[in-house]
Formats: sequence, structure tokens, C-alpha cells
Amino acid sequence: MARKKDDNLHVERQQQIMEAAKQCFVTRGFHQSSMRQILEIAGISAGGAYNYFAGKADIVKGIVEEELADVDMLGRQLKSAKNPLIGVGQLVSDIIVYTTHENAVLASEIHAEACRNPEIGKLTASVTKKLRHHIGDAISKGRDAGVITTDYTVAELTEWVVALYEGYIGRIASDKKLKRKSSAWMAEQSVLKFLGNNS
Amino acid sequence: MARKKDDNLHVERQQQIMEAAKQCFVTRGFHQSSMRQILEIAGISAGGAYNYFAGKADIVKGIVEEELADVDMLGRQLKSAKNPLIGVGQLVSDIIVYTTHENAVLASEIHAEACRNPEIGKLTASVTKKLRHHIGDAISKGRDAGVITTDYTVAELTEWVVALYEGYIGRIASDKKLKRKSSAWMAEQSVLKFLGNNS
Repeated sequence: MARKKDDNLHVERQQQIMEAAKQCFVTRGFHQSSMRQILEIAGISAGGAYNYFAGKADIVKGIVEEELADVDMLGRQLKSAKNPLIGVGQLVSDIIVYTTHENAVLASEIHAEACRNPEIGKLTASVTKKLRHHIGDAISKGRDAGVITTDYTVAELTEWVVALYEGYIGRIASDKKLKRKSSAWMAEQSVLKFLGNNS
Repeated sequence: MARKKDDNLHVERQQQIMEAAKQCFVTRGFHQSSMRQILEIAGISAGGAYNYFAGKADIVKGIVEEELADVDMLGRQLKSAKNPLIGVGQLVSDIIVYTTHENAVLASEIHAEACRNPEIGKLTASVTKKLRHHIGDAISKGRDAGVITTDYTVAELTEWVVALYEGYIGRIASDKKLKRKSSAWMAEQSVLKFLGNNS
């Protein structure tokens, strides 16, 4: 039991540090956030910190692992959709509705870092790859079922879907006042129309 | 004449510094690029540098002003399009075809910085605002002419167009091997189909 309690405490501390890091990355940027500042915000002494994370890149790894869990959930939802076309539209809508301004800024920050830093790049690529895989599967299934009727390869259509929701994440980051609900609705309709020929 | 020659030299030096800064921002990021490093790459002595730019933010201002000139050109092209719907499709296609991987990484870097740094944010907002204005005008004209037939407000449709091409810029930044030509074609077709009901 004692061990169990320790495990919980360990996870709780990790969460605390990750939340502090997110806050720090959003307000100061990845490179201007030091471990010292992150731990200060988390209220954890510098001495004990390395029990939880080896450094900043390791914290980003933790954040990306959280994202992977979200992606798995989205993937399961997509897989269970009776109509794969409607599933893809819903996925795009969900991503736009549930991405807050702060998370979008964090995503932009990590994306910029990923373009230059191969270690971070590999981590974020694993998220995109997984989500892309789920979307590609749904598009193939939708084509077999005759509900996705556009030409173009599955890879090209997947790229289009990813570009669309990532573009909206960028807009949410740039514009605090962006109406996420109506944007999500628009994006969803464009997916249904472009992929499914539904006017 | 001497003055004229000096002006040219001044502009040439500014160009040199801006190119060096772009290179530096792409490989090291905005914050890890010092004025000293930028000037070293540009081959300009630190002593004379402040004749050309007051600092890094001032260099970004120069880069954004270049972008504004590109936006003006795109705006003129869009205005001269006989069919505004086709004009918007062409604009999206042009942006995707002409954005190199390096420029896309630079855009991601500046975008991330703009989310946190109000000075840079104001600069990049001026570019988006201008382009958005051109796109909004074209959509209104297309609607009056009956070639743009979707519901949704002009502002929402404009947001969708901006999200789409910005999303592709993000993809170009993340994936060096992205096929820009076929992506541009896909994006263009999706604009024609979603805005114009053309299947």
C-alpha cells in the first residue's frame, strides 16, 4: 500500500511539473523557460526534480505522451463511427472545439521547436503519424463503403485533413477571440463536402 | 550620384543582414540567434550594424515588410481575377507552391514568437489582416457574382481559407519531403468545391 501511495505521489508530482512547464512554455517560450523557473512555478525543490524528469526535453516527452493518449481516444472514436466520413468530420470538429488558446500556443511553440530540434521533432512526428494512421484507415474504409467519393490518394486526403485542423490550431493560437464552435462546424462541413461530395 | 550609390549599398547591407537572420532563425530559432551571430553570418562588423537595424525585433520588422510586399502582389492578382472564386483557389495554390521548407520553418518560428511577443504579434497580424482583407473582398465579389454559393459569413469563409493555407505551411515546415505541387492542387480543388459548390 505504501508503494502504491508513493506511485500516486510520483505521478502527481510529474503532473505538477508538466503543468508548470506548459504554463512557462506558453508565456515565455521553450528556450526562455529554465528548469529552475518551471520547478519554482510547480513548487518543487530543485534538488528533488531530477527524480521526475531528466530535463526539459524529457518534460516535453511527458507532454507528448499525454497527447498520444488523447490521440488514442480520438482514434477509438473514429474507429467506432458507423460512417467513416462522418467520423472524420467529427474528429476535425472535436480537435478544434477542444483546443484552448493556451494549448494552441503550446502546440505552436512545440511545432516550431520540432522543426529544428530532431529529438523533439521525433516525438511530435509520432503523434502526427498515429493520428494520420487513424485518419487514413477511416478514409480507406469510407472509400470501400462508398461514402468517400473524391479522387486523390488516401495519403493526399489525409494530408489535407491534417493541414486543415492544424491550420485551425494555428488560428486559435493567433486569435484569442476566435469562435471555436462555429469554426469547428465550418471545418466539419468542408470535410463532408470535399471528401464526400455532399453538398 | 554618390548618394544614390550609398542608398543602394544601404539596402544591400540590410538585405544581407535579413538573409543571415532568416538562416539563423531557421537553424537556431529566434531566441538562440544573437545579433552577433547574425552579423557574423552576414559578414558585417558589429560596430556598423546598428546603422541598419536597431535589433532583432527590427530585423523581423524588415522580414515582415518584405512579406507585406508579397501580400500586395497576391492581392493585386486576386483583384484582377475575372472569377473571384478561381482567384481564391489560385491564391491558396500559389502560397503552397511558393513556400519553401525553409520559409515555412521561418514562418512557424515567427508565428510561435508572435503568440507571446506583442511587438512581433502586431507585425504578423498586419500581414494576416491585409491578406484576409483581400480574400474577404474576393469572397464578397464572388458571392455577388453568384460563383460563391455556400452559406456562412464572409468572415467565417475567410477564416477557413486562411486556416487551410496556414495549415499547409505548417505541413511544409514539418515535412521536408511534402509534395507541394500536388498539395497545392488538392487545396485549390477543395476551395473550389467548398466555396463554389463545384463538384
